[in-house]
Amino acid sequence: MSDTNNDQLVQSQDPDHPANLIPRLCRQFYTLGWVTGTGGGTSIRKDDHVYIAPSGVQKELIQPENMFVLSWPTPKYPPSARNYVRKPFELKPSACTPLFLAAFERGALCSIHTHSQWAVLVTLLVEKLHGKDAPFEISNIEQIKGIPKGPSKGMLGFHDTLRIPIIENTPFEEDLTEWLEKAMDQYPDTYAVLVRRHGIYVWGDTPAKAKTQCESLDYLFQLAVEMHKLGLPWT
Amino acid sequence: MSDTNNDQLVQSQDPDHPANLIPRLCRQFYTLGWVTGTGGGTSIRKDDHVYIAPSGVQKELIQPENMFVLSWPTPKYPPSARNYVRKPFELKPSACTPLFLAAFERGALCSIHTHSQWAVLVTLLVEKLHGKDAPFEISNIEQIKGIPKGPSKGMLGFHDTLRIPIIENTPFEEDLTEWLEKAMDQYPDTYAVLVRRHGIYVWGDTPAKAKTQCESLDYLFQLAVEMHKLGLPWT
Amino acid sequence: MSDTNNDQLVQSQDPDHPANLIPRLCRQFYTLGWVTGTGGGTSIRKDDHVYIAPSGVQKELIQPENMFVLSWPTPKYPPSARNYVRKPFELKPSACTPLFLAAFERGALCSIHTHSQWAVLVTLLVEKLHGKDAPFEISNIEQIKGIPKGPSKGMLGFHDTLRIPIIENTPFEEDLTEWLEKAMDQYPDTYAVLVRRHGIYVWGDTPAKAKTQCESLDYLFQLAVEMHKLGLPWT
Amino acid sequence: MSDTNNDQLVQSQDPDHPANLIPRLCRQFYTLGWVTGTGGGTSIRKDDHVYIAPSGVQKELIQPENMFVLSWPTPKYPPSARNYVRKPFELKPSACTPLFLAAFERGALCSIHTHSQWAVLVTLLVEKLHGKDAPFEISNIEQIKGIPKGPSKGMLGFHDTLRIPIIENTPFEEDLTEWLEKAMDQYPDTYAVLVRRHGIYVWGDTPAKAKTQCESLDYLFQLAVEMHKLGLPWT
Repeated sequence: MSDTNNDQLVQSQDPDHPANLIPRLCRQFYTLGWVTGTGGGTSIRKDDHVYIAPSGVQKELIQPENMFVLSWPTPKYPPSARNYVRKPFELKPSACTPLFLAAFERGALCSIHTHSQWAVLVTLLVEKLHGKDAPFEISNIEQIKGIPKGPSKGMLGFHDTLRIPIIENTPFEEDLTEWLEKAMDQYPDTYAVLVRRHGIYVWGDTPAKAKTQCESLDYLFQLAVEMHKLGLPWT
Repeated sequence: MSDTNNDQLVQSQDPDHPANLIPRLCRQFYTLGWVTGTGGGTSIRKDDHVYIAPSGVQKELIQPENMFVLSWPTPKYPPSARNYVRKPFELKPSACTPLFLAAFERGALCSIHTHSQWAVLVTLLVEKLHGKDAPFEISNIEQIKGIPKGPSKGMLGFHDTLRIPIIENTPFEEDLTEWLEKAMDQYPDTYAVLVRRHGIYVWGDTPAKAKTQCESLDYLFQLAVEMHKLGLPWT
Repeated sequence: MSDTNNDQLVQSQDPDHPANLIPRLCRQFYTLGWVTGTGGGTSIRKDDHVYIAPSGVQKELIQPENMFVLSWPTPKYPPSARNYVRKPFELKPSACTPLFLAAFERGALCSIHTHSQWAVLVTLLVEKLHGKDAPFEISNIEQIKGIPKGPSKGMLGFHDTLRIPIIENTPFEEDLTEWLEKAMDQYPDTYAVLVRRHGIYVWGDTPAKAKTQCESLDYLFQLAVEMHKLGLPWT
Repeated sequence: MSDTNNDQLVQSQDPDHPANLIPRLCRQFYTLGWVTGTGGGTSIRKDDHVYIAPSGVQKELIQPENMFVLSWPTPKYPPSARNYVRKPFELKPSACTPLFLAAFERGALCSIHTHSQWAVLVTLLVEKLHGKDAPFEISNIEQIKGIPKGPSKGMLGFHDTLRIPIIENTPFEEDLTEWLEKAMDQYPDTYAVLVRRHGIYVWGDTPAKAKTQCESLDYLFQLAVEMHKLGLPWT
């Protein structure tokens, strides 16, 4: 961490700069019920910096100056330097940080974590119907086309099966990282991992893609819960 | 396509000009959950131009300058001229375009496509209850009076049966056109066609009518799903 | 109707003047899903004038200049004079007008009509459970205390039973007036009448009371539907 | 009560001053459906003053000048002085006042009362499933970590059981105080008490904590109702 707190890193007139975009996304996610009661979080990588919303604060009130900034190894910034270059006074970094970084290591530029109730309910229904090892699966719904088939593989088709792995929750959020990475290895094409009784991690090649993929998945989880109530199968 | 990109076509001080109205409607549809994750779309015909929201973008963020504009045959603009007179740089035209045009060919001035979950659930319930060839039917609900009986026939009455045809989804959105047109021919009085596991296409004699008819239909689909949960028949 | 269109009747700097308050309430009701697709309406009486939202327009877009104004008999304005003193050009008066007036004749100063889905579902559940002549009844819910026991009788208590009469719908809205008035006579203490498969009429001693009573009733209808789904009785 | 009405107590440029924060919170709670139809309320203690939203008004319209202010015993303000130092003209103090004070006596700085339907439904389901003496219990849901284990004990863990006592409703709100205090004594670690067929009282060590704890609890109640509908157990 440098002598100063690097305030210039979070001061930009560009509305799509991470320091401005993360607060805007968090307000939107609050309205969608995804980050109720300080839950959830968002992180964006831009060049050799990773911007992360702080922990334990009301997500709809986050301001640019509340951002944590982490250095990120690039050719012009050596790996050993991955550490905080900005820490807001009196705020705690997000416990989701290692999970966000796992997605960045696989090439994502934005990572979103929500406590969406539809995501939680889907993890419980899958366990009840198919057991602890089963992923969530749905097919033949148009909205599936909003999710990529895998990195550089284009989008899923209407008749494809969307498959999202589910990992078990752990008492401490950072301990999820190992299981998240295992799921990422086992499902190299996935852009999301559900966490049973907890929520979901979604990432994307750009902030816009991470956000719209998160929306499409949440749409599918809500639809799946309603389909189940009406006795309609998912695949 | 002309030499310039015809920016003047999307620059107007009139808040109800299509280039301003489509972004406003898209923001409203986003809030209603109809165009989640870049799904859905809207198009308005005004004189010899058709304005279309672009594909694959966040619908709540669309700006006038993102509009595609297509020429439309009128006495002063010969049919051979139906082609793009404005294409925003780096955006893709909507795959819904031929479906929107099918409605304009039948006299509509606005066409709306949503991925409403209520619409999707209704298509699944109709299939389960009455088979693949059955339309959605509901009667004796006041909100039915918000839907026209047919072109130039006034509105449906309380005791009339609202009947919305349902077509099967296809892997590519443009391939729906043929089936949409067949449904339009088979149900010449309808102002909407449901697409199984996908959503709905709604059109109207004016943008305001297309939007309010879309709202009334969505109200009826939501009510129908809730009635089904409570064991209450639709007709 | 006077020579001029009496525009001064709808021009006021007071945000609570009926010409300003009705548009604000309609925007709020639109967000609550009560006036979807031009359904529903609102009317306020102030001194010797009754202000009424127009028919068939998008309720969230209503402006002060869209208001109809009806004269209302008072000592300084003889009964024979109950007619339109302002009619907006090219708009239709609301078919709800005689129903709103029935409430004003009983002393109300504001009358609200919604197509709330919870109200519609409750009318269907009551018919299924208790037959066509039964009113909606609920007791032992705190929110009941938001509804008056009757004119000048204070509010209902927690252990009181709230009783809202239900009338059958008619093909033409104005034909409801006779049945609404009969229900008002049979239930002289009620501030609301449900209309089966249609919605609800709610009125109040002031605009604020009509609005908050409408909210409390809608809360109770939603709760009642959810209680029914969970097998919990209403009384 | 002093000679003047102490208007300076509710005039502050600080957006987080209780006179500004309570109106902002009430608007937010209205949008969440927690204070429909004038129900519910909020109170904040700051130094030797307690600020309380008035009774019987539309919560989304409350202004700083509508605040009641009560003196609060501190070393520089003797106990005998607990009385109104500001009473807005023509408004009634909230019937929740003694219940809010009970939380302040236990060290809270903010107390929130909602009529959330999820809270009401949960009290009915617990009675049906486990009888009148049972508290609401849920475990193994991530959002539980948003609720404290008890004063100065840190937050609940994922495997801990959240336990919220439920008291019976009384016809007059102030009569709840005795039962609320008994529940507080019996559950000294709780930051909330449910009231059957009524709603919930939630408090916190700061206004932000009271608000986010209230959100986390409401999330858990909604999830619990949906889990019950899907046949999924709470613990």
